[in-house]
Order: sequence, then C-alpha cells, then structure tokens
Amino acid sequence: MARTKPNTFTKYASFIGQKMTQLGFIGLGHMGMPMALQLSQQFSVIAYDQNPQACTEFRNLGGQDAPSLEAMLENVHVVISMLPNGRILMSVYQEIIGLIPKHALLIDSSTIGPLASLEWHAMAKQHGFRSVDAPVSGGVKAAKEGRLSFMLGGSTENIEAAKTYLQPLGKNFIHTGDAGSGQAAKICNNLVLANTMIAVSEAFALANRLQLNPQKLYEVLKTSSGNSWVIENYLPVPNLLKDVPAENDYQAGFSGTMMLKDLKLANEAAKHLEQNLKLSQSSQDIYQDMIDQNQGDKDFSYIYQLLADN
Amino acid sequence: MARTKPNTFTKYASFIGQKMTQLGFIGLGHMGMPMALQLSQQFSVIAYDQNPQACTEFRNLGGQDAPSLEAMLENVHVVISMLPNGRILMSVYQEIIGLIPKHALLIDSSTIGPLASLEWHAMAKQHGFRSVDAPVSGGVKAAKEGRLSFMLGGSTENIEAAKTYLQPLGKNFIHTGDAGSGQAAKICNNLVLANTMIAVSEAFALANRLQLNPQKLYEVLKTSSGNSWVIENYLPVPNLLKDVPAENDYQAGFSGTMMLKDLKLANEAAKHLEQNLKLSQSSQDIYQDMIDQNQGDKDFSYIYQLLADN
Repeated sequence: MARTKPNTFTKYASFIGQKMTQLGFIGLGHMGMPMALQLSQQFSVIAYDQNPQACTEFRNLGGQDAPSLEAMLENVHVVISMLPNGRILMSVYQEIIGLIPKHALLIDSSTIGPLASLEWHAMAKQHGFRSVDAPVSGGVKAAKEGRLSFMLGGSTENIEAAKTYLQPLGKNFIHTGDAGSGQAAKICNNLVLANTMIAVSEAFALANRLQLNPQKLYEVLKTSSGNSWVIENYLPVPNLLKDVPAENDYQAGFSGTMMLKDLKLANEAAKHLEQNLKLSQSSQDIYQDMIDQNQGDKDFSYIYQLLADN
Repeated sequence: MARTKPNTFTKYASFIGQKMTQLGFIGLGHMGMPMALQLSQQFSVIAYDQNPQACTEFRNLGGQDAPSLEAMLENVHVVISMLPNGRILMSVYQEIIGLIPKHALLIDSSTIGPLASLEWHAMAKQHGFRSVDAPVSGGVKAAKEGRLSFMLGGSTENIEAAKTYLQPLGKNFIHTGDAGSGQAAKICNNLVLANTMIAVSEAFALANRLQLNPQKLYEVLKTSSGNSWVIENYLPVPNLLKDVPAENDYQAGFSGTMMLKDLKLANEAAKHLEQNLKLSQSSQDIYQDMIDQNQGDKDFSYIYQLLADN
C-alpha cells in the first residue's frame, strides 16, 4: 500500500496536539524521575513529589513541577503514578480522586501487587474513571533509555489509550489481561528474577571456592542451560560485564529493599491463594538477611558479595 | 590469506585417517547412546555397556558393540566414558586401567563433580595416561543433534587432542581450566538450572492462582528480566513450547533423579569447602520431595505439576 509522507505542517500539528495533552505525573523517585523526563520530551508534563528536593531536581533537569497535587491536577488528561507501594498509592488517591478532571485516564506504574491494584481499579471505577495498571520491568537504565517493558492490565480500549502516552517510555507493551493482571505478571516476573539472582550468585560463590575462573563460568553459563537475563545483563560478579551495579560498588539499580518488597508481594499473594512457594520463601529469607545486615540500600545483586564473604 | 580447497584425495585420506582412529565408548544410557552413535558416523567406535539390552539397542541402531570391556579396549586410541556417577566411573576404571593401551587419551563426560574427577585424573596420571574431564550440557536432544556444550578440564595440549574426537558432538567447547574444572563448571551450571526451573515453575503456579493467562506470563518473562534458557527452551508448562517434556507427559529428558544427583554434587562440594548455599539447599529438598512422591523418573520440569497440583 502507498503511504503518504506527512508534510511538515501535519507533523507540527500532531506535535502541537501531543504538547496540548496535559500529563500529571506523581512520584519522582529512581524510576519516576527518568520516566517523567522522557515523557516531557513528547508531552506537556507536570510532575509532583511530596519530597521538595525531588521536585527541584526535576526542575533542574528541565522538567516542570507543581507546588501541590491540587495544582498538578488542574486540566490534566492523564494521571500517571509511580509510587513505592500500594498503601502510599491508595492514600494519595484518596486525597486526589475528587480533584481529578472528568474523563481523565488513570495509569498506575507502581509495583503494588494484584490485590492492592484491584482496590485501586475499584476506586477509579467508582468515581467514573478509566484505569490501567501498567507496572514496568527493566530498571533505571531502561527507564532512561525509553526501553522499559510494560505489563498492562485493563480493558483493550483503555490499554490502547494508555499506550499512546506510554510509547516514549517502552519497547515492549504486553496486554496481560483484565484489571490487575499487569501487577500479577510483574510480581511473577520479579519472583523469577529474585530467585535467579541468588542462584547465579550461589554458582559463582561456589566457583570461587572451587578455584574456577569466573570468566570461564560466565562463558559456560552464557552458552548452556544456565543462561538467563541475569547472566547476560545483570551479572552480580565484578569484572565481567560493563554497566552493571557490580562494577559500581553495587549502587542501586534496584535495591535489595525493593526486591524484598516485590518478593513479599508475590509470597503474600501466594499465601492468600493457598499456593505454597518454598523456593521463593527461601529467597525472601535471603534478601531479608541482606536488609538485616544493613545492606538494603545496595543493589539486590549485592547478594553475591554476601555469599562470597561468608 | 589464500586457502587451498582440499581435493577429493586429501578428503578421502583424512576420512580414512579418522576411521582408523579407534574409539572405545563406555556407557550407553540416555546420553551415551546418542553420543556413541554420532561418533560412529565419523570414527571407528566400539561401545560397551554392562546392560546387554543397551548393547543390543546400539547394535540395532547401526553401532558396533564389544562383548566385554576387555574386548572393547583392544587397540583403542581414545576411551570416552559416560557413566551415572563417580563411584561407578572409579570402579569401572579400577577394572580397566591396566588393560588400556599405552598412549591412549582418556575422556570422561560423566557428571561426577570436581572432587571425584580429581581422583579419576590422579589415577590416570599415575598410570601414565593423558586425561580430560569433559562433562556436557544440553540434554538428550542436543546429544542427538550434535549440539552439546562441552566444559573441558585439563592441560591445553590434552584438551586440543580431546576436541578432535568430540567435535561431532558439540557446538561449544570451553576450556574451563585445569583438571576437574570442567566438572566444577558443570555442577555450577546445573545448580543454576535446578533453581531456575523451580523459580519458573513457582511463577507459573502463582499465575494460575491469579488467573493470569500462562501465554501472557510467557510473553512477559521472555521480554523482561525474568528471561532464561528455561523460558526459551525448556518451559515446564504445557501448551506453550514445542518439543519440551511438558508436551510429552514429562518423559525425561533429564529426570528429577538426575537433577537431584547433580544438585547434591554441588551442595556436597559447597559443604566440603564451607560455602553456604541456602537457596540450592531448598531446591535440593524440593527435588527430593519429587523423588519421595515416586516421580523421580519423570523429567525434572515435572516440578511445575507438583506445584500446580498442591
């Protein structure tokens, strides 16, 4: 089929159209900050964080912040939230739900688990809003590069609307099912990641003791049945991969505390549904050890150092 | 640089040269059988298994077997073993070490762990033989297709010699270090695999309870930080990937009993070296449960069914 190339005017009109879409962004943490900045390149974004320092940083990086949630919500068409947990999300929404303009689309990218997400969807529905749970995978690096993976829960219509705004942030958009299913997929993914990171760390710790060169084990795992995203992108052992927290004194990245939080969401959902997850319970204990040793702020791949030192 | 194309005579001479190399192959189990058959296409192979049925099957598939270990060893240049464990390997070698022709190269592809492998190397050295530990990764399918990954422990000279004979079997050959290092790499790889399989199984079992479509979780994991060789090649959940044991009533493949064996080798080596591997200990308990429920002959990916049923 013939495609007409958009002329300059059409492009400009579309750009103006997008720029006229007003996005409210709540939560400028590790993930929220780069996401809000990326979105600002394509849309008119006003962001808010309860921490004034985060707002100042956002402003210094070229973003536009609001002095209050109320000010942020004026005239918004879309509200995107990226908050630490379900309790905070719900308390923020209890505060703002009456202030959000009619017809706004609500997108929550926080990781809060499927149970809390269903509560949030119910609240949105009760007030007549369309809502999408849209947690992400990929971490801070992917957020900065606009290469996140989105897991999207909600109706097809709402998901299609949400994708219009999330496009600058992601490379994969998977409609996982009904409301809450994005959160379900997210905690299942992070459950696998949490366990794999410890498994890889245990293998390299054992290799150390066996005087097996870590470079050799890396080559073996990469080409064998032990391969994983962790091996290829997030190796917990120093001196093997560039741009991983292990090369940067285990600065998070994705902290041990955050990983423990996600793993707890999975294990709690499992318990709630009478599903026994023995391995993930062990993993939870191991990340809990890391936090108990006051290393929770370090990247979760620091697990390897705890093992290697013991 | 200019390369001369070998003429037909050169090719034929090289073929004859290879066919004149006599290989003795010990152990015609799940892995040994397809390996010995592959080798027979390129070399003159005589195989032996203490189970006469295995010998008959090998003969029926076009292979040449020997009536005894002694008969097999006559005039061999290379001995390759693929046996269930270190105890059996050592007892076979105690029987044959005095019968092996001088200058033969000994290659052991069994998975026996680094400690037992060092014993075997020592015995070989004591009797003046060159030896290489050469465990494999990839399973029965890769063995049939000549696409195994080899982890090779020993001197560079011996490894180079061994690779001449192993070439038809493998796609990756990694010289992991000194004697025993191939075994070290193998148990570290399988430790990762054992844990990853349970982690993936727990994620899909939880997804079931959360009414998340397994196809969607598969799509998410494949494109996110939960990806692994297990996700791409060995999914424990039916109806998602072709040619996996889950599609074939969990026929092994690689049995739960074998996986438990490898995991025990890793955990025993770790204990011996005072390395605490908490997650892999949990995994060992979980595979032990599978065996205790009389499901040890099923493929190790059957773990998923045990979880989904519970």
